[in-house]
Amino acid sequence: MAANFISRGKKIVAIGRNYVDHVKELNNTVPKEPFFFIKPTTSYVQSGGKIEIPRGVLAHHEIELGVVIGKPGRDIQEAQADSHIAGYALAIDMTARNMQEAVKKKGLPWSAVKGFDTFTPIGSFISRSSVPDPHKLDIWLKINGQFKQRGSTADMIFNIPKLIQHVSSIMTLEEGDLLLTGTPSGVGPVSPGDEVTGGLSVAETNEELASIKFT
Amino acid sequence: MAANFISRGKKIVAIGRNYVDHVKELNNTVPKEPFFFIKPTTSYVQSGGKIEIPRGVLAHHEIELGVVIGKPGRDIQEAQADSHIAGYALAIDMTARNMQEAVKKKGLPWSAVKGFDTFTPIGSFISRSSVPDPHKLDIWLKINGQFKQRGSTADMIFNIPKLIQHVSSIMTLEEGDLLLTGTPSGVGPVSPGDEVTGGLSVAETNEELASIKFT
Ligand SMILES: [Mg+2]
Ligand SMILES: [Mg+2]
Ligand SMILES: [Mg+2]
Repeated sequence: MAANFISRGKKIVAIGRNYVDHVKELNNTVPKEPFFFIKPTTSYVQSGGKIEIPRGVLAHHEIELGVVIGKPGRDIQEAQADSHIAGYALAIDMTARNMQEAVKKKGLPWSAVKGFDTFTPIGSFISRSSVPDPHKLDIWLKINGQFKQRGSTADMIFNIPKLIQHVSSIMTLEEGDLLLTGTPSGVGPVSPGDEVTGGLSVAETNEELASIKFT
Repeated sequence: MAANFISRGKKIVAIGRNYVDHVKELNNTVPKEPFFFIKPTTSYVQSGGKIEIPRGVLAHHEIELGVVIGKPGRDIQEAQADSHIAGYALAIDMTARNMQEAVKKKGLPWSAVKGFDTFTPIGSFISRSSVPDPHKLDIWLKINGQFKQRGSTADMIFNIPKLIQHVSSIMTLEEGDLLLTGTPSGVGPVSPGDEVTGGLSVAETNEELASIKFT
């Protein structure tokens, strides 16, 4: 079932501010503990599809490593977190940045600004056995062939076991849920008609794990 | 499927500040358009169950009418909204109020403060044919036998068709999704061991549509 997380999963839990350089580029403060927001699964659009940018929205790309949950759990401890992972996926956490600035000022929820249909472009399921170490991956995003984001999952502030422990201390993680682990620096606008591509590879060997493309 | 929304639905979309008296009691401003947040379906607990209050959390009850979506849709117009409704359910939108005050000040998401396991106590599915008019219902909540909330769905700022139009202008509503329509005034703390009961009835006839009980 986890391999079919796009159609069968129930929630996307997305971590904010998990790379120092990204925290700085948006003039935010480095969090003392992880925080997250929920995106609806209706926001998925699969590679090859189109990112719809609503009128009046300044939409930003955030390339992120997604973790697909394989075994449900609550209060999962860091040491056990690995056994709850079925695999991974490359994702973009699209964000209505202008709306987000407004709701942050007003203390309002982020659900709409993160939750538009097609605001979670997503690649194929990557089985965990293909990934020697999820914290040693290169991750990048290009707009119209130009690099905008080039990061390493080694630079996460909170690593994946810590994220799973934190989220599952609040809510049960279910099979097929996707955990988005935050974005490295370089976020910026996507305009209608832009070609958005992204990739994920093993740092040591350059082996490609995922490649995504959207228009 | 919609009758099994508790086990099969994918998201809960909860409207904030939809009754004037509740807006005032929390010193908030009346919104010019609806806003919402997403709760995970892992927060459901069925009547007869227990509301778990995490250590350090000041948990508030918010009794709300839930609308169960029967037919999926995006950009649903007010005039068509009714055809997307399969039925209703009585729900409590539990809120970690102390944590909510903190995240509002910091401009952070509401997902954790609204999303703990058991933070959406829920009654049985009520078919739409049992409800003559969803805007003419009495709704109440008691703690240990004492009334805390007594409202009427007639007092919603934005009515159900308007809410469905707004949410579906941002994200697709799917069969089994639950739309929480906001709470009337009287919100307040639930302590461990409290008996929490709630009811929903037709205003004109006093016919009971739902009765829920939690410990
Ligand atoms: Mg939120
Ligand atoms: Mg992000
Ligand atoms: Mg509420």
